[in-house]
Amino acid sequence: VLPTDPRRLVILTEGQFGIHHAKTAIGVIRYGDDEIVAILDSSVQEANLSAFLPQFDVPFVATLEEALAQPVRPNALLIGIAPTGGRLPESWRAIILAAIEAGLDVHSGLHQFLGDDADFAYAAASAGTRIIDYRRSPERMETAVGRRHLPGKRVILTVGTDCAIGKMSVALELVAAARRAGDNAVMVPTGQTGMMIEGWGVAVDRVISDFTNGTVEWLVEQGEHRADWVLVEGQGSIDHPAYSSVTLGLIHGATPHALILVHKPGQTEHDFEHLPDASFPIAELGPFIELHERIAGLVAPSEVVALAMNTSLYPDDADARRVIGEIEAETGLPADDPVRFGPDRLWAQVRERVDALPWVTGA
Amino acid sequence: VLPTDPRRLVILTEGQFGIHHAKTAIGVIRYGDDEIVAILDSSVQEANLSAFLPQFDVPFVATLEEALAQPVRPNALLIGIAPTGGRLPESWRAIILAAIEAGLDVHSGLHQFLGDDADFAYAAASAGTRIIDYRRSPERMETAVGRRHLPGKRVILTVGTDCAIGKMSVALELVAAARRAGDNAVMVPTGQTGMMIEGWGVAVDRVISDFTNGTVEWLVEQGEHRADWVLVEGQGSIDHPAYSSVTLGLIHGATPHALILVHKPGQTEHDFEHLPDASFPIAELGPFIELHERIAGLVAPSEVVALAMNTSLYPDDADARRVIGEIEAETGLPADDPVRFGPDRLWAQVRERVDALPWVTGA
Repeated sequence: VLPTDPRRLVILTEGQFGIHHAKTAIGVIRYGDDEIVAILDSSVQEANLSAFLPQFDVPFVATLEEALAQPVRPNALLIGIAPTGGRLPESWRAIILAAIEAGLDVHSGLHQFLGDDADFAYAAASAGTRIIDYRRSPERMETAVGRRHLPGKRVILTVGTDCAIGKMSVALELVAAARRAGDNAVMVPTGQTGMMIEGWGVAVDRVISDFTNGTVEWLVEQGEHRADWVLVEGQGSIDHPAYSSVTLGLIHGATPHALILVHKPGQTEHDFEHLPDASFPIAELGPFIELHERIAGLVAPSEVVALAMNTSLYPDDADARRVIGEIEAETGLPADDPVRFGPDRLWAQVRERVDALPWVTGA
Repeated sequence: VLPTDPRRLVILTEGQFGIHHAKTAIGVIRYGDDEIVAILDSSVQEANLSAFLPQFDVPFVATLEEALAQPVRPNALLIGIAPTGGRLPESWRAIILAAIEAGLDVHSGLHQFLGDDADFAYAAASAGTRIIDYRRSPERMETAVGRRHLPGKRVILTVGTDCAIGKMSVALELVAAARRAGDNAVMVPTGQTGMMIEGWGVAVDRVISDFTNGTVEWLVEQGEHRADWVLVEGQGSIDHPAYSSVTLGLIHGATPHALILVHKPGQTEHDFEHLPDASFPIAELGPFIELHERIAGLVAPSEVVALAMNTSLYPDDADARRVIGEIEAETGLPADDPVRFGPDRLWAQVRERVDALPWVTGA
């Protein structure tokens, strides 16, 4: 059970704010309900997050002392990175220990459980604070059983042409749009950042692999009990050399009625820490869409109903809109950048297409 | 590190010998080097395993006392089942405790670790015996890095149209055939039964899902250090509603030069404990072969070079040979039942086809 009391967060990204590993920090800042007191990263020259994201007013601080001296006193330290392999940078130990001793809870999504670390656990017990490891799996160890969706529910999974390009953000934006349109919608968090934002879920990449499909199947059922439109946060990509098995567990475990393919135009290579002489290009969209439908269809029919673009490599709005138009023409599917240009139009198109799917209307 | 001293085994299948969950027992009996003292299963009416498998002379016993009274004194109890979910049947606790108290080691491939059970651990410490949980994962937690195969190595993965139809047996038979032909070959064990037989490996379905591809990548490298022809034991099937994610982790982690598709003609539905109203048919061979090559090719090129049949649903040899011929004609690929009719012919065909693959000759 995850804590739900309000958090006043210091987000720790020390030395790593500038790289995509800080996606946990950005996700929680952008979509969470928490008060963000400061971002602790001495490597950042700018004084405020607004230098990067104009809509957010969050100071950068170089030391824990500075964070504690802010007008609002923080009550929790959130580990703001999601590095490959999920290990704690050794240089962060002293900061975390000091934060615990200052009475802060620690929220972490690392594979390396901070609550199992003797030093951290002893310090937390002494200080009366909590360490919450979001990636800790539920005790449940069950394989998939071929569950059908509950009547009237629509399940949509975000998939992608790469990892770390916005599958969670797209799901969150579309849920927000759905709610504005009067639809009863929920996101099913499948990763630590989504869990930190929504306060429930399972970090599917931490589950014992035999139970990946089964855990997703069960988690989606929890989503169906919460809402009618169930947007499942995707992970990785089906062609990712390191993470594809988790992606397939989501596709076959969720048995989504529809898929939304998240794509970052302009990116040519998969983004992960691979050997220097290896090359793993991003797939071509048309065949990749068809392949997703075929692979999903091995267990239950599904269709890619839209593309959600991450146009961050096109700083100029007009360029971004042109690229979106090109991809709509190329694929024959609705496409947009819901984070940049708003999700309402895309949600209306997704909703209409999902409701017209034969396996939805017949359900 | 797994123990390698000779074992004199009592294999426990109590109440479950007749179902495929006892595949661990059959695998160890068929392919292991251990002396099999007895199979402990009071539900079996026959006196000897030879009633089912004529080539094996192993008595069935109804109690542990009977097993201990055999002419050869056993020194280990092996849990002979691989049930869905991997939990210990509660009724077996007393038998296992008694075996430990009688001085036997316990070898288990269950997800539920017997060595972590307080009662078993205390009994083993008192009796000076060992509990070996084969499914315990290595401490290594690494994602895949896009490793290339070592020069001159050929990596072949067995895949299947279902789980529990013989992917391990096919790999073991082909390794035996390869060695008879003078080829330097090894099987890479990826499941608990293969590990019990070969004395090394990793139960890939126990790994944290984020590390599935990476663990397989590393495990195959260990195989390449052991031999030139590396036959990787497959798991599950790419269209299995419960286990597909593990299967894809093997395909993308091993990046095999070639695939051998294991198929059980006559079986129409996937075999797992699914809800009664669900139906998951076995795939059609032609498209399924093409799909495997396409999915593998997302990371590295691969080709299905042969079909290995499990013809156990055709008791008559002539029927079985006819079905094999039909499938050869249907797919245009070499096919045989290597367990039933011997693997030498199939190995020669596999070997030739693998050596002719452009990504092998060019390596």
